[in-house]
Amino acid sequence: MAGYSTYIDLIRPLIDGKEIISTGMTKEVARVEAAIEQARAGKSCAIVSSGDPGIYAMAGLVFETCKIKGIEIMPPDSDPRAADDSNILRLEVVPGIPALCAGAALLGAPLTHDFAAISLSDLLTPWELIEKRLEAAAGADFVIVLYNPKSKKRNWQLGKAREIILRHRDKNTPVGIVSRAMREEQHIEIVTLDNMHTAEVDMQTTVFIGNSTSIAYMDFMYTPRGYAKKYEIQS
Amino acid sequence: MAGYSTYIDLIRPLIDGKEIISTGMTKEVARVEAAIEQARAGKSCAIVSSGDPGIYAMAGLVFETCKIKGIEIMPPDSDPRAADDSNILRLEVVPGIPALCAGAALLGAPLTHDFAAISLSDLLTPWELIEKRLEAAAGADFVIVLYNPKSKKRNWQLGKAREIILRHRDKNTPVGIVSRAMREEQHIEIVTLDNMHTAEVDMQTTVFIGNSTSIAYMDFMYTPRGYAKKYEIQS
Repeated sequence: MAGYSTYIDLIRPLIDGKEIISTGMTKEVARVEAAIEQARAGKSCAIVSSGDPGIYAMAGLVFETCKIKGIEIMPPDSDPRAADDSNILRLEVVPGIPALCAGAALLGAPLTHDFAAISLSDLLTPWELIEKRLEAAAGADFVIVLYNPKSKKRNWQLGKAREIILRHRDKNTPVGIVSRAMREEQHIEIVTLDNMHTAEVDMQTTVFIGNSTSIAYMDFMYTPRGYAKKYEIQS
Repeated sequence: MAGYSTYIDLIRPLIDGKEIISTGMTKEVARVEAAIEQARAGKSCAIVSSGDPGIYAMAGLVFETCKIKGIEIMPPDSDPRAADDSNILRLEVVPGIPALCAGAALLGAPLTHDFAAISLSDLLTPWELIEKRLEAAAGADFVIVLYNPKSKKRNWQLGKAREIILRHRDKNTPVGIVSRAMREEQHIEIVTLDNMHTAEVDMQTTVFIGNSTSIAYMDFMYTPRGYAKKYEIQS
């Protein structure tokens, strides 16, 4: 069992008696290498992420590491003849509920039409590319989900994203802010695009920016799919 | 309990003894109206979707219908003083694992960087807008997830999407095709963008088009986050 210490702590009661490789944030490479080593030594090893392991999480790094090291990998259920070949690593990704689904559910239904997910972290991605994606998503009227909107060291990216999106979208566009969805200290807020940068946001926040048709109604926000126009729901 | 008959059938063993409102496809509006009517009459009623109810699914229509009918709605845990007001409808969206996570998990990790989800169904969305979104997402190097790629009546949209994306992306870009993820008759295939339109695709298929850095390796595909470049994983 390998994972970022915060996530390991969340599931502590479920992993009693298991061998645990717990490392701090930014130690992702070391964590994955240690897990692969365990698995190649014949143990079965799980790497734990929060949300879905395939969305801005650890699954990609596992494949990347295997490719770089030239490790042969296979899905768990393929070719039973290879089952005894200890050089082959069996890899299974178990999907979960990503922050974009948990957050959307708490807000109402902001993602029932086309959307783009963009991370504002420029630690591993050049800011120019992030800006290009914000511009493209805003211009083509995608609902936009922002991951990693802000950290202690990165505090200007969300304001810059707001500026870019405001060039294409009304300042009253509803924006949903969800922090720690379905965990302790969960926080939900619906604001307008115009004052999005003043909302309470940190590294555990996901930001949902509506498209041109998204609506704030009572304590919820949603994006219509187009049924009402087509089938004329009676009021 | 309300739902499209196919989904109701999938959970039949779990809903024994429940009152069931089952309707066919394209009867979404009638289904939601019937469910709201039940709930307003004092019963608790669940509307069932496959995957996540907030991603191209029924949650949006529930909010849309309440807004049009002027029904007052509240999250389940808010303001206990209003609990006895039978005019207020308590609405809770329970998130699930969307096809984009289930499919990505089976393919490896195609979604570990920024991605855009686009439905190719022009039943409720003008094709011009879909084309604009394909163009924008391809131009800004998003991984692209296509929902509703093809149906019996809509057979040219996937070919057109391929054409648009090929203007921006290499013809050998890996494309993952997943049908009926984690259900009976599951089908997984990794092809190239160039021959994406010849793959076996239907309404239960999700298509994952890699960005410029996505890689096909063994029987998997993944999108690197950038760790290898930054931290130099040793081969």
